[in-house]
Amino acid sequence: MTGPRYIAFEGAEGCGKSTQAARYASAIDAVLTRETGGTDIGARLREILHDTSIHDMAPRAEALIAAADRAQHLDQVVRPALDAGRTVVSDRSVYSTLAYQGYGRRLDVDQLRQINDWATGGLWPDLVVFIDTPDDVIAERMSTRNLDRFEAAGDDFHDRVIDGFRTMAAADPDRWISVQAVGSIAQVAQSIYDSIAEWSER
Amino acid sequence: MTGPRYIAFEGAEGCGKSTQAARYASAIDAVLTRETGGTDIGARLREILHDTSIHDMAPRAEALIAAADRAQHLDQVVRPALDAGRTVVSDRSVYSTLAYQGYGRRLDVDQLRQINDWATGGLWPDLVVFIDTPDDVIAERMSTRNLDRFEAAGDDFHDRVIDGFRTMAAADPDRWISVQAVGSIAQVAQSIYDSIAEWSER
Repeated sequence: MTGPRYIAFEGAEGCGKSTQAARYASAIDAVLTRETGGTDIGARLREILHDTSIHDMAPRAEALIAAADRAQHLDQVVRPALDAGRTVVSDRSVYSTLAYQGYGRRLDVDQLRQINDWATGGLWPDLVVFIDTPDDVIAERMSTRNLDRFEAAGDDFHDRVIDGFRTMAAADPDRWISVQAVGSIAQVAQSIYDSIAEWSER
Repeated sequence: MTGPRYIAFEGAEGCGKSTQAARYASAIDAVLTRETGGTDIGARLREILHDTSIHDMAPRAEALIAAADRAQHLDQVVRPALDAGRTVVSDRSVYSTLAYQGYGRRLDVDQLRQINDWATGGLWPDLVVFIDTPDDVIAERMSTRNLDRFEAAGDDFHDRVIDGFRTMAAADPDRWISVQAVGSIAQVAQSIYDSIAEWSER
């Protein structure tokens, strides 16, 4: 595959995905962005989504706020960058909605796909880099953070989210690559770089 | 029709709909609520939607923020009230999205219906009271307000919105009643009261 690409980094909280997305974007001189919160409007939506003082958000409202963030993000950041010939590296994407609100909150995944296909105008990532981290490593990292609304949602929820990512990765191997996040940051970065290079040559 | 009902008041900005919705809800001891902003989460979404400092909101993002407000509103306010046997009078509803983001912003109305059918879990108003106001009356009222993001969107936009309401009212006469907003507030209120009573006896 040649030309500008839309690459999403996905994974559970605490998997090191933000660090790795930034590192990879810098290595290939791509536009680095994120969902949620990749635009000014999105930053305001993200504040609501992560607010720990909110305990009664309806799962469909949560999914639709994320989809709104995404519609704005694709319109304002991702599509213009691709149109300008730049590759885009996004810390999370539509697949986080499928994992968190679909597998995690148990909303229907096919319906979420349809709604998000509309939100994105049909623009889905060309490649998803799934940072798959051993559960004990995630637990260790999370223990040192102040947890936001998602991070505090409980072990069962997070188990379903990770299972969701693994299920989607297994079902769509042309689009997904899984990288085991073991070793140092530099070692994982090298592993990601090599995996994407291999994917590009397919 | 008997039992608790879900009644939406719709119309252009400045049509007197909020005043009339409050008056009617009081007259029949119904739960008065509104979209957007009928919940705490919705109030935060409404702030974004109406913020005049935002000039670059993508139409799909706008529609999805409104749908998120609606999902929360139906889950937290409308459905519990109906389940408790109360009638609900809502200042705006899903039909405002069809009028504003569909007819006004030119998004596909059928797609908006599908997304909002999901947002609402299939719960649509039993009755829509459309306050149809002569254009010169609206222009007069709007001239004395500080305009928000929608109010400031221009005459062509507002003409399309009103045409949208009129088109939907004509296409679905079992669900919609149109009331001409001419005369005093008390006269319009009486006209609404009589029209709803007549609709109830159909």
